[in-house]
Amino acid sequence: MTLENLFTPRSLAVVGSASPGKLGAVLIRAVLDGGFAGPVYAVNPKSQGVDSVPGYPSIEAIGQPVDLAVIASPAGSVVDVLEDCGKAGTRAAVVITSGFGETGNHAGEAALLETARRHGIRMVGPNCAGIANTHHRLFPTLEWHPPQGEVALVTQSGALGGVVLAWAAEQGLGISKFISYGNGADLGQEELLHYLSGDPQTRVVALYIESVRNGRSFMEALSACAAQKPVVVIKAGRTDAGRRATASHTGSMAGSDAVYEAAIRECGAVRARSVEEMLDLCRAFTTTCLPRGRRVAVVTNSGGPGVLAADQAAELGLEVPEPSLALKERLREFLSANCSLRNPIDLTVEGTPDGFRKALAAMLEEEYDAAIAINVATPYLDSVGLARGVAGGTAASGKPCLASFLPPQLSREPEQLLKQSGIPNYASGERAAAALAHLAAYSEAQRQPAAVSPGKYRESAPAERADRLFGGRRALLEPEAMEWLKSEGIPVPPFALAASPEEAAQAAARIGFPVVMKVVSPDILHKSDQGGVILNIRGEKAARAAFEKIRAAAAGKDFRGAILYPMVKAGREVLVGMTGDPQFGPVVAFGLGGIYTEIWRDVALRVAPVTAAEAHEMIRSLRSFPLLAGARGGRRSDLDALAEMLARFSQLPLEFPEVGEIDLNPVFVFEKGLAVGDARVIRRAD
Amino acid sequence: MTLENLFTPRSLAVVGSASPGKLGAVLIRAVLDGGFAGPVYAVNPKSQGVDSVPGYPSIEAIGQPVDLAVIASPAGSVVDVLEDCGKAGTRAAVVITSGFGETGNHAGEAALLETARRHGIRMVGPNCAGIANTHHRLFPTLEWHPPQGEVALVTQSGALGGVVLAWAAEQGLGISKFISYGNGADLGQEELLHYLSGDPQTRVVALYIESVRNGRSFMEALSACAAQKPVVVIKAGRTDAGRRATASHTGSMAGSDAVYEAAIRECGAVRARSVEEMLDLCRAFTTTCLPRGRRVAVVTNSGGPGVLAADQAAELGLEVPEPSLALKERLREFLSANCSLRNPIDLTVEGTPDGFRKALAAMLEEEYDAAIAINVATPYLDSVGLARGVAGGTAASGKPCLASFLPPQLSREPEQLLKQSGIPNYASGERAAAALAHLAAYSEAQRQPAAVSPGKYRESAPAERADRLFGGRRALLEPEAMEWLKSEGIPVPPFALAASPEEAAQAAARIGFPVVMKVVSPDILHKSDQGGVILNIRGEKAARAAFEKIRAAAAGKDFRGAILYPMVKAGREVLVGMTGDPQFGPVVAFGLGGIYTEIWRDVALRVAPVTAAEAHEMIRSLRSFPLLAGARGGRRSDLDALAEMLARFSQLPLEFPEVGEIDLNPVFVFEKGLAVGDARVIRRAD
Repeated sequence: MTLENLFTPRSLAVVGSASPGKLGAVLIRAVLDGGFAGPVYAVNPKSQGVDSVPGYPSIEAIGQPVDLAVIASPAGSVVDVLEDCGKAGTRAAVVITSGFGETGNHAGEAALLETARRHGIRMVGPNCAGIANTHHRLFPTLEWHPPQGEVALVTQSGALGGVVLAWAAEQGLGISKFISYGNGADLGQEELLHYLSGDPQTRVVALYIESVRNGRSFMEALSACAAQKPVVVIKAGRTDAGRRATASHTGSMAGSDAVYEAAIRECGAVRARSVEEMLDLCRAFTTTCLPRGRRVAVVTNSGGPGVLAADQAAELGLEVPEPSLALKERLREFLSANCSLRNPIDLTVEGTPDGFRKALAAMLEEEYDAAIAINVATPYLDSVGLARGVAGGTAASGKPCLASFLPPQLSREPEQLLKQSGIPNYASGERAAAALAHLAAYSEAQRQPAAVSPGKYRESAPAERADRLFGGRRALLEPEAMEWLKSEGIPVPPFALAASPEEAAQAAARIGFPVVMKVVSPDILHKSDQGGVILNIRGEKAARAAFEKIRAAAAGKDFRGAILYPMVKAGREVLVGMTGDPQFGPVVAFGLGGIYTEIWRDVALRVAPVTAAEAHEMIRSLRSFPLLAGARGGRRSDLDALAEMLARFSQLPLEFPEVGEIDLNPVFVFEKGLAVGDARVIRRAD
Repeated sequence: MTLENLFTPRSLAVVGSASPGKLGAVLIRAVLDGGFAGPVYAVNPKSQGVDSVPGYPSIEAIGQPVDLAVIASPAGSVVDVLEDCGKAGTRAAVVITSGFGETGNHAGEAALLETARRHGIRMVGPNCAGIANTHHRLFPTLEWHPPQGEVALVTQSGALGGVVLAWAAEQGLGISKFISYGNGADLGQEELLHYLSGDPQTRVVALYIESVRNGRSFMEALSACAAQKPVVVIKAGRTDAGRRATASHTGSMAGSDAVYEAAIRECGAVRARSVEEMLDLCRAFTTTCLPRGRRVAVVTNSGGPGVLAADQAAELGLEVPEPSLALKERLREFLSANCSLRNPIDLTVEGTPDGFRKALAAMLEEEYDAAIAINVATPYLDSVGLARGVAGGTAASGKPCLASFLPPQLSREPEQLLKQSGIPNYASGERAAAALAHLAAYSEAQRQPAAVSPGKYRESAPAERADRLFGGRRALLEPEAMEWLKSEGIPVPPFALAASPEEAAQAAARIGFPVVMKVVSPDILHKSDQGGVILNIRGEKAARAAFEKIRAAAAGKDFRGAILYPMVKAGREVLVGMTGDPQFGPVVAFGLGGIYTEIWRDVALRVAPVTAAEAHEMIRSLRSFPLLAGARGGRRSDLDALAEMLARFSQLPLEFPEVGEIDLNPVFVFEKGLAVGDARVIRRAD
């Protein structure tokens, strides 16, 4: 995709009132202050200019090629301005003006899009805070001008973008491109991600979103971009309160946060929980390299901050092991007896540049995958020298080192020196450890075979949603559900449907005693509660009696008979489910059911489909996984069979788009194999 | 306690080399730079002075009263310096010098303490970074000089203290006193907490610790101080890696973090996880007031940051409810149609000072307990005016408001204005929300009746640990344990000991069938595994047979007979335990046992004793509490009986200090009452 006119225009016009203090004037000032190299024009009814920028009544009237129009004129005029662009041959527009979809004016927004499309104009906005391309000195935005660098920021919230840019400037984090896409009428998250994945000036993409329209095309774009470069995502609206707020201010309802969490993870992107964390991660990704493992060396000249960094690292899943005896002996050769060598390596306040250099080099040579270097300065310490020591000790290793040189008042110069040596500096050792934990997780994910193949998440078109299963009804009866699952390759136990006591007795004998009998009726949802389930039936006579009892329990209901199964041998009960998410379509759920789900909320979600490898990962991600693996003297469940079944199951909603919800609960998992114990299959509502 | 000579000396001497660049010279410079009002003397063998500060060979030689000695002379000389203090009448000393207990030189440290005690000298250190009293312009420290204020910082790590002071200076957080107590040979955490609890210049105490010597006297001091003013605690060494590090650099092993967590909570102190969080909390406690509830209004002029703040607030247990219809109508009267009123109240970028003022006033008038005000500035916004609006809207409410005025580059002036109005400003709305969540939790704890009465945590002296229970043996037999528990008021089921088949039959008949029979032998720990437990015995003949079987199972072991109980009716199984912590002594554990303990690690710990009210809180703190409360159609357990039992149980280790460990597992809790199902009681090892 090429967005040349948008990001590297040779000339631009700002459309909107150029009177002092008005938006048009402010934007022109921002463009000039940013040092844009090409001609700039002001366009407004009064043909008013600003300083050296000449004013015209329309873009067409300029009589020169204008690559980009930055539009801040009143909402009612924007369609006309786009028409003007069309006539003048301008093919890119940034529409700052608000008052469209976000305030309910969907017709107005549709008209913008139609006009832009008709003229081949690519449009950012409306209702946005502008864009920036630091490498082109292009700043048509009201927000802070950040330093040039390698992080592209794409944001649904203009104000949030402004905050990030200001913080980036404060921290010296370089930005390549900034796009506040506002309502995203034309260019949205997906296209921008595709574009940035191929942008050579962007090494890391930072994305702030509150909602997506189509979860699956979002996943296609996100996974394609994440395959090229790290993508750090803030997804706001994690809680009900946050979701209510995003619904208010973007006019679109965000879906379940758990599904977003699963989707972002599946795509190989990194989720940040706050702006601070996003910036910390972007700094790590652009400054240092990825660790090949989780073993961290903490080298410090002060105890307390070293302890806090080690605590944080260990809590976030990094390993902080002691050095081997051999390595300790090597360290002891050049470190004084006061220095602790148990990792953290505490050089004490006597720590020298040479001490840092040698200690880091020795630790990183073999036994550790990454380092955190901590220096607490006083005005009496040579922090620049210590920074040189840290840089020197890391240089040859090819491994990442993150630093925390403190306090900020004494660390400006060492911070610059560290940065030039590929070592990001953090406000605390804890934050360095948190950033490193993300690097390690990202590195691990990168080394796994790509989970996402092109088209994996493509959903079937509505036209394909023929109703092959339900015959217009809302749900399948249990025998129908079992028959369907069986034909689709999901392991179900032998079963039979009986319509009379005699049929029940014969079926039970055929299946083999003992058997279970369950009522079949579209009217009865909670079969056990209503006397519709009889266990452990041990003979033909008992089977006849059981059928009578079940028929009696269904008196007055639409009774279709009884379904019979063999009594199942002891197996671990799990839950396998599928529901449709409004943004992401079919989502697969797996857990241990019962209290594990209800009290511990220990459920793994993935956007369908999943491969068997992903299903394995999904199973292992449960906190209750030890129970499946045979903890507490229990038997190990057949995890391979379970993973295969989950993978096959996850295909069903894509092959049968008419299905809206499936609940297999329980599924019995044995030491060898598994079997569905009960099944609810419900039609899609739309 | 009075520490006048230490914190408000009229004169001081710095003992140590005054040659340029040496510690003594640096300390004198720091004292002078700090603006100390009284006479300052240099003491060193060369009688060398620094600038206007005269040099003497000893304190005695000064011939003038010296209130405080700041000692940085070599380790080997410090005892002599303290003798000199004694002769000169100096009664306070800060010993910066290291090389004592922390390097294994315990004899040297003992000599310091003995000398100080003999002369009535109160001593800080050795191995410390000094002290400060900003209100006395006293800065005998190498660390950053912070602005004057109301937070006292007490720290075990000097370097960490330096970081906190530097950050406090950077953030404009005022400090009252700073004490780096180093090895704490004389003045340690406990005495300093007692002193600061009565210090009128200190409104909040910030405490950094890595270990405590005596957990119970620490709890006495911490709870006494926390009853007077907020205490914010960082306890480092949360993980194994961190603990190894603290052990390395303080020479003392920290105990289980879970016990520290419980102890800090029981004392009513607030635990921070990082220095940033500690500073954020200190700022909140010193600037604003406490909320009376958890309902938060978020008022913002930009959507994204508002959503992130609402998300964080909700995730941390605050409530972010929508305003009532009536309140929305009131808001609509003065807010434009573009503003979202669903909380966050989004004033949009058009938000005015008046909009902030009126919206905050309306929200705080009745329906909300606290507010978070967010302003994302651009250079084109009047942030000072908006800050005035926020201050005006909060003023009359008497309720707390926390702000996030962003970005930092544009928020220095509004931040000052907000601070003067009692509104702390944070680097992000998320951090404001996190600080507010702590304020709310602290406020709730303050409104509960005090859990800690003086002397509550005092442990019995070793002399009282007569062995009344064990007769020299390692553990009680089950019948002995049951007898003891019964006599101490813990509900146990009826039971009987039988030594022969006939006794077993008679005892079973007396108890009433069905009964359970269990082997009694000091050699058999896992009774079930070794055939030592027979359930559901339903007659005298069966009882005789069961006894024979159990006797056979114990063949070759020290067989003492069988214990009989009635078969217990269905009850929820829980675990009640007690172990001795090296720092805190007896600690009580409560949980649901089995997988809840092993996989979910869902156990509540409290330092013994606990009151029934605390036991209730302990029970409710379990994530699996819904199971006890009757979730999933289960029966509600008798929580009152359980809380009473826990309270009584928690007294036992204090009344019987010879007991080292008790395991009641399971305890059966019924709808009415409870009964111990099995008991292990083990003697204290020392």
